[in-house]
Amino acid sequence: MNDFISHAADLPAPTRFPWIAEGIAFGGDYNPEQWPEELWPEDIALMQRAGVTSVSLGIFSWGMLEVADDVWEWGWLDRIMDLLHAGGIGVNLATPTAAPPIWLLQSHPEIATVDADGHRTAQGGRLAWSPSSAVFRRYAVRVVRAVAERYGTHPALRMWHVSNEIGNENGRCFSEETGAAFRVWLAARFGDVEQLNAAWGTAFWGHHYTSFDQIEPPRGARTGHNPALLLDFERFTSDALIGHYRAERDVLREITPDVPITTNFMVMNTPGATDHEVWAREVDIVANDHYTIGADPHRHSELAFSADRVRGLVDGRPWMLMEHSTAAVNWQGVNRAKSAGEMARDSLAHVARGSDGVLFFQWRASTAGAEQFHSAMIPHAGVDSQIFRDVEQLGATLTALAPVRGSRVEKARVALLFDHDTVAALRSGRKPSTRVDPIDMPIAIHRALTQRGIAVDVLPSSADLDGYAAVVVPTLYLVDDALPARVERFAAAGGHVLVTYFSGIADVNNRVRTGGYPGAFRDLLGVRVDEFFPLMADESVELDNGWTADVWLENVDAHDAEVLARVATGERAGVPAYTRRTVGAGSAAYLATRPDEAGLDAVVGDLVDIAGVQPVAVVDAGLEVTRRTADDRSYLFLINQTGHERRAEASGRDLVSGESYEGSVRVAPGAVVVIEESR
Amino acid sequence: MNDFISHAADLPAPTRFPWIAEGIAFGGDYNPEQWPEELWPEDIALMQRAGVTSVSLGIFSWGMLEVADDVWEWGWLDRIMDLLHAGGIGVNLATPTAAPPIWLLQSHPEIATVDADGHRTAQGGRLAWSPSSAVFRRYAVRVVRAVAERYGTHPALRMWHVSNEIGNENGRCFSEETGAAFRVWLAARFGDVEQLNAAWGTAFWGHHYTSFDQIEPPRGARTGHNPALLLDFERFTSDALIGHYRAERDVLREITPDVPITTNFMVMNTPGATDHEVWAREVDIVANDHYTIGADPHRHSELAFSADRVRGLVDGRPWMLMEHSTAAVNWQGVNRAKSAGEMARDSLAHVARGSDGVLFFQWRASTAGAEQFHSAMIPHAGVDSQIFRDVEQLGATLTALAPVRGSRVEKARVALLFDHDTVAALRSGRKPSTRVDPIDMPIAIHRALTQRGIAVDVLPSSADLDGYAAVVVPTLYLVDDALPARVERFAAAGGHVLVTYFSGIADVNNRVRTGGYPGAFRDLLGVRVDEFFPLMADESVELDNGWTADVWLENVDAHDAEVLARVATGERAGVPAYTRRTVGAGSAAYLATRPDEAGLDAVVGDLVDIAGVQPVAVVDAGLEVTRRTADDRSYLFLINQTGHERRAEASGRDLVSGESYEGSVRVAPGAVVVIEESR
Amino acid sequence: MNDFISHAADLPAPTRFPWIAEGIAFGGDYNPEQWPEELWPEDIALMQRAGVTSVSLGIFSWGMLEVADDVWEWGWLDRIMDLLHAGGIGVNLATPTAAPPIWLLQSHPEIATVDADGHRTAQGGRLAWSPSSAVFRRYAVRVVRAVAERYGTHPALRMWHVSNEIGNENGRCFSEETGAAFRVWLAARFGDVEQLNAAWGTAFWGHHYTSFDQIEPPRGARTGHNPALLLDFERFTSDALIGHYRAERDVLREITPDVPITTNFMVMNTPGATDHEVWAREVDIVANDHYTIGADPHRHSELAFSADRVRGLVDGRPWMLMEHSTAAVNWQGVNRAKSAGEMARDSLAHVARGSDGVLFFQWRASTAGAEQFHSAMIPHAGVDSQIFRDVEQLGATLTALAPVRGSRVEKARVALLFDHDTVAALRSGRKPSTRVDPIDMPIAIHRALTQRGIAVDVLPSSADLDGYAAVVVPTLYLVDDALPARVERFAAAGGHVLVTYFSGIADVNNRVRTGGYPGAFRDLLGVRVDEFFPLMADESVELDNGWTADVWLENVDAHDAEVLARVATGERAGVPAYTRRTVGAGSAAYLATRPDEAGLDAVVGDLVDIAGVQPVAVVDAGLEVTRRTADDRSYLFLINQTGHERRAEASGRDLVSGESYEGSVRVAPGAVVVIEESR
Repeated sequence: MNDFISHAADLPAPTRFPWIAEGIAFGGDYNPEQWPEELWPEDIALMQRAGVTSVSLGIFSWGMLEVADDVWEWGWLDRIMDLLHAGGIGVNLATPTAAPPIWLLQSHPEIATVDADGHRTAQGGRLAWSPSSAVFRRYAVRVVRAVAERYGTHPALRMWHVSNEIGNENGRCFSEETGAAFRVWLAARFGDVEQLNAAWGTAFWGHHYTSFDQIEPPRGARTGHNPALLLDFERFTSDALIGHYRAERDVLREITPDVPITTNFMVMNTPGATDHEVWAREVDIVANDHYTIGADPHRHSELAFSADRVRGLVDGRPWMLMEHSTAAVNWQGVNRAKSAGEMARDSLAHVARGSDGVLFFQWRASTAGAEQFHSAMIPHAGVDSQIFRDVEQLGATLTALAPVRGSRVEKARVALLFDHDTVAALRSGRKPSTRVDPIDMPIAIHRALTQRGIAVDVLPSSADLDGYAAVVVPTLYLVDDALPARVERFAAAGGHVLVTYFSGIADVNNRVRTGGYPGAFRDLLGVRVDEFFPLMADESVELDNGWTADVWLENVDAHDAEVLARVATGERAGVPAYTRRTVGAGSAAYLATRPDEAGLDAVVGDLVDIAGVQPVAVVDAGLEVTRRTADDRSYLFLINQTGHERRAEASGRDLVSGESYEGSVRVAPGAVVVIEESR
Repeated sequence: MNDFISHAADLPAPTRFPWIAEGIAFGGDYNPEQWPEELWPEDIALMQRAGVTSVSLGIFSWGMLEVADDVWEWGWLDRIMDLLHAGGIGVNLATPTAAPPIWLLQSHPEIATVDADGHRTAQGGRLAWSPSSAVFRRYAVRVVRAVAERYGTHPALRMWHVSNEIGNENGRCFSEETGAAFRVWLAARFGDVEQLNAAWGTAFWGHHYTSFDQIEPPRGARTGHNPALLLDFERFTSDALIGHYRAERDVLREITPDVPITTNFMVMNTPGATDHEVWAREVDIVANDHYTIGADPHRHSELAFSADRVRGLVDGRPWMLMEHSTAAVNWQGVNRAKSAGEMARDSLAHVARGSDGVLFFQWRASTAGAEQFHSAMIPHAGVDSQIFRDVEQLGATLTALAPVRGSRVEKARVALLFDHDTVAALRSGRKPSTRVDPIDMPIAIHRALTQRGIAVDVLPSSADLDGYAAVVVPTLYLVDDALPARVERFAAAGGHVLVTYFSGIADVNNRVRTGGYPGAFRDLLGVRVDEFFPLMADESVELDNGWTADVWLENVDAHDAEVLARVATGERAGVPAYTRRTVGAGSAAYLATRPDEAGLDAVVGDLVDIAGVQPVAVVDAGLEVTRRTADDRSYLFLINQTGHERRAEASGRDLVSGESYEGSVRVAPGAVVVIEESR
Repeated sequence: MNDFISHAADLPAPTRFPWIAEGIAFGGDYNPEQWPEELWPEDIALMQRAGVTSVSLGIFSWGMLEVADDVWEWGWLDRIMDLLHAGGIGVNLATPTAAPPIWLLQSHPEIATVDADGHRTAQGGRLAWSPSSAVFRRYAVRVVRAVAERYGTHPALRMWHVSNEIGNENGRCFSEETGAAFRVWLAARFGDVEQLNAAWGTAFWGHHYTSFDQIEPPRGARTGHNPALLLDFERFTSDALIGHYRAERDVLREITPDVPITTNFMVMNTPGATDHEVWAREVDIVANDHYTIGADPHRHSELAFSADRVRGLVDGRPWMLMEHSTAAVNWQGVNRAKSAGEMARDSLAHVARGSDGVLFFQWRASTAGAEQFHSAMIPHAGVDSQIFRDVEQLGATLTALAPVRGSRVEKARVALLFDHDTVAALRSGRKPSTRVDPIDMPIAIHRALTQRGIAVDVLPSSADLDGYAAVVVPTLYLVDDALPARVERFAAAGGHVLVTYFSGIADVNNRVRTGGYPGAFRDLLGVRVDEFFPLMADESVELDNGWTADVWLENVDAHDAEVLARVATGERAGVPAYTRRTVGAGSAAYLATRPDEAGLDAVVGDLVDIAGVQPVAVVDAGLEVTRRTADDRSYLFLINQTGHERRAEASGRDLVSGESYEGSVRVAPGAVVVIEESR
């Protein structure tokens, strides 16, 4: 059936909603208000030509709907909704709260965010509202109600798209009103201020509070602030933002209980202000915006990691790609165009990892505004362009992939743990080395695994580890007190664990665990570290197995573990760098440094060997492979990230080309093949 | 006759004014108030010894003239004016508004500029006033009137020097009062706010205005603002500054109609806040301040470009160099001293390109104040110094060059178009690549041409193209709708055009032209581009003709042009990089990348070959050559920028050395020769 | 006798105080309030085990003592004071003013510092108070009185530790109240505002004042401000901070005349806001905090320079190291751990240069707070750690060194002049090159001397030069009018002087001395310079003696000096770079560039040869050597900074190992030997 099941926390039980398209949703943000109305019919004809099924509409339209306080003009939106419906295009209709109208910003300047130095955000951008503003909340809820009442039963409506990238520009606010909300949040969290003092360690530098009323957001420079205050302000920020989301969502649910609701996340290379694990529980389907970094030669690996992470937020259920780009963006300094075929590979890589939609920002490239040089489905040059031809081709491919819709990515045998809390904690307070990045080792190890054709589930550390053969804990700085025992039990039962440096260091209050590093995992790993040896920016060492390593070393005492590699050069020569302890029927390895690519490949090779994990399929190097399955069928995605033909062992029919293979599939340079596998 | 003609817009007709000196004006800023009065006679004796004819006086003297609100002390200025007159030194007397007195800044803090974050400029620098401040305007006009009334008939007075480097420190102001002025400016420009909405494309991100009252200056970070808002704020800023200039100028004109008026521009490597094309219409003679960047190995090329650009602002009429430095400045981090002879070469290079004055900041090096390590005509060491000896030598040379005064630089056959609007537009909104700089290609191509001895007129794009054989359009991002047809007519009539990448992209509202790049020039060039391929910082490619290129590539479809070179390496191999279309009797070439020096030399070689443009004279490489002419005479300037002797084909007498040449002139390493050419 | 003599300016005469420990004081900051009270007995037992004699207590405890305005809770501090006393540990008890309680910050926000842009410092760090705040002063004095009255006679009390690193976070304040204090300070300094105008040269840029009331702190960007204003604001800042110190000190002196008083300085690589020369006159014993920079390969040389400088502040009398680190700090980006033995070498290097104490920040590594990753005597891992074992070993060594306590470092034959005024002046106003650093040449020359085993006294330029054979004036930019004659007399009497580039340039008002550089030293050196030639960042030259040099050249006219080396390459070839003039019985050499290490070694070699200065002892390269002496005994410190065994000519018993040597001492790689020399 063409539907999907929401597990949203506000629903009494898992609930079935119709899917927004026939198959894989295809389309993008559509901003008809930027164009003359005469152009709209042509837009819809071109959408049909390209196979577009879905558009996101009205994202920045508040000021054009509510033209002054409680003065409404619906005509243009009525007309385009009708046109889209007539053209067979489904609409993800936005609540327009990402862009408060100028009249609201000017009549209520107090709704704007305030930065850490006390500067109120000026008009002229977007998302300039504080999630803690009661006044903004009142106006936002009113416009959401108006939109929902007007369009809740419109036949073009498929889904609600709440606001846009909540937390992007309004990630942190330091206003007085935010301070009051933060104090309420803290009082709820700690109950008693002495609990907070104890948890935060406020005795340091005399920061002891005698009342919650004394606590302020961490204004000014961050370097002097208590790391626990900083971390809890990060958590509060995510919760404040979600509070706003819920307020909008609740209005929509009340008025249109049958229409699914989402908002677009930003799971990508630079983690933002929101804890997606919490947010994922609040939407009917997770929608993600993803942009690659042109300067990153491994950007397809970051994409794969991010897509696996999104899927991990929803226990492997399908999700949708709400925004990505056909070509260059405009915010990266030098904005690299995509290579030939890269747009299709990126799009299908998301599908390969669970997305049931491929949507872009945006349909037509703007000629004005802050994103006038951001690529789109129709570039400035118009339809006679390589980009639009590629869009049409992609539309055809997605049509052919319709059967894939609703299938699930096959559960992996390897889980990799990743939490927003570690990201937030590493930002909160000075650390031994600024070269330790929260997302570096997760992506590097994920990449080493996927390069071997191994499927990986990227999971919050609270996830159930049952059914996995191996678990990777990659520089997971902050862990709660329960995780070590859970991982220990996993290993004792035959699981195999790989932990990397600077994991398990802090507790949930961002306090360092004492008694020897890596605090929470010391016993599991059979090692004890009394000192870190961060390496300088230009410093590296050789290990005794030939690997080069940088970033980090430690004074590892492998008292209850086998040493697999030691430092061989420099003043730390002899220190263990890679160890393994047998744990019941399983094992726990520790990587105390950052090896080069060959070293990381060997480390994950050890892990999958000992855990007996097989690749998704036998493939040539450079061929990304995943499998999506449904009750009675399975689809093998093969994405050739190289400039040479690659082969995989598989049999079945390629949904993209229609060609059938027996035993061996050839994938042309840069091409994507989706084999409906023979059973 | 020793006079010059002003074309200032406030005069009913071109008007003749006496020139400020016998020949080439020589001197600099003179700040006697920094020194004991006993030293003044020595100053004047030294000026006479050095051949100084002209000083700029009183630039920062407001607080020493108006010592409290409407309390005046004229004595010291009376005395030095008289002394200078007695010594035969002419005075460019400043209106002292560059430095509001402390009492004014403190009694009226609202006159100070406010930055984009709302910080009001603190006292302690200079030019800390907003051009939109009515209070400041009132005080400024009063002091101007007082100065004009007191010194308007003083025999030492030669010219008014209005304020100083207007727009330097006070380039942008974001105060409330500025906001109000900006709204008035916008209302005058657009008439109706819906016109503005349409022109700016405010539908993007919901920035739609319902009233001009809703518009604010682009406060806060610039990245979110509408590019058209940003650009119009740049234009408003220049206009607001010129508004202040006009207010001062009008007072002076009223009181002293016979005294010429100027203000010092800053046409140099980093374009500032003012649109010099507009400003040039408002002064009786254009005066320019020019400082080279010590770290730039091609600084003499930048100087040549800037000087040609100044001349282009006034249709080839003479102008004057109001400030440059004898040696190091103090604001470049490492402040490189000039090499032996560099001061003379710089000075005469300005004269060679049309300047009738060589003035310095300043006469005596300050021992105190913010510029205490800025060089001067008399350094800290005193007159027994290489610098002062060089100054004396320069004075003698300029005396010998007196006949050159009033001659005009020979009109070039090549015009190169350059507009402040493109500078401002490239700063306004995110672009495909931060590596595209508005002044990079103009200087690079100008340099390639002048290295071949070719004369170039650097002109606003509104200039008349008649009489030119070739026109260069170097990365002219923003062009109005009229230019393409004008250039097309130029080519059709036998002219030859060279356009470089990222030209013609935006219209006057900073909106991208659709239908394929390079928008305005697509038809002229016979090419159509559907996508840009900016190159990363460390990226370059080879072309099939052997050139290396970087910064930029595009997906050029040369449907109606000959391809002269293609990319040969990398993933864009095969893409055209250099094309030419025959246009009537002329041609239009397109350079879609940034070649290395050899490549640029070849490109301009192609242009001058096809256009039949000859060098000013046949010269060895490294010899800068220009010609100034008058009715009955001509002067060939030869500046040897190398460390080796160089030769030129010429005949006549060297005004500098007195030596005569027949057929061939030798120029010693680093030397300058000015041949009064035989007829 | 186990005491020391204070020369503090507030005492009527030099005064004898008991020393705080039996021998070398050993210990660190102790923050028991961060730990459960149950842990305190274990702390004291571990201190005893490690040989700790002294702790600094209560530094950040204000808010835990005065829990609300005038509400006091003394219990916990009473108990730990008693426990420490019972354990035999002496206490340096802090006045807790480094951390105003939250209730005070919130009830009196006006006590907080304000930055140059007008932002008031937010709560959450430390030292967030303005020294010019009358309200803060009142509260601070009250808490100091309360602490002094309660613990002034406690038997554990050994010394008062006033506040903490005064001037660190609160180095500069730009509040209105500070402005008023600055004006009072200026009026006292100049008497008449016209004196100030003349001294500051306010005629430049029209900054003339007609009243002290018009003067403001240098708010906003520093680049436009008058360099004399900037410099006097630096001096005022130091004086304002010392004013606060004195207010606290006076209360303590009144209540406890028999207890010595100190505060911890920060003499280290980056000079701070305070003029330690003035401060040194106000404490009973100078205490210093010193942290090395892990990325600096010569960090032990910077340590040696800083320690010698501290000793130079007190005329060679002993001082104490109040804080350093056992291992990594947390504020250097990548925080390098110390190498094996480095903590001991650092500790003993301070003792070798006059410290009678070795104290650390801090006893136990914090698990929370802004410095949770700063190393401590007990690391997070606990006592089973290399760091704690090293601490115990160090304690034993210091116990063995007890006899050294109270001895003085042997007076050197070489004095090196260093003033805070030059540091402050080089920060105040733009200079010819940002590459001229106030501490670079002092450290480089000190290092070249100490590498040869030469003892150096680092002295304020006001110090008596009698008894020295050689004086180094290393890039001493600002000197008063008296110094040149004093140095000239020193040389005429047979002393030998080495001056390096950019010395003697400015007078005490930060004005450039005219008549030729190096202003104040021109006649002494027999050279005259009319222009500086700063070298660009990537530029260097060869000298005709084979040295390489960078940073700086000058146009030296050695009219009355012998040229020892000239520039041999580049466009400045031929310019003298190193000269010497015979001055009476002595000489004065001038180094006009920055040679490489070999060149600097040769320069100091010339100096010590001509001055007949011998090393402290004959030692192998890489062996740091100093001697401390008392009436009847002497101690030779030998610190092996290499990875190889090194030898020295010496005889006596090694206090560290107990071993005796005759004639030749072997020092193991990285080891320290302290020979009680045979007489």
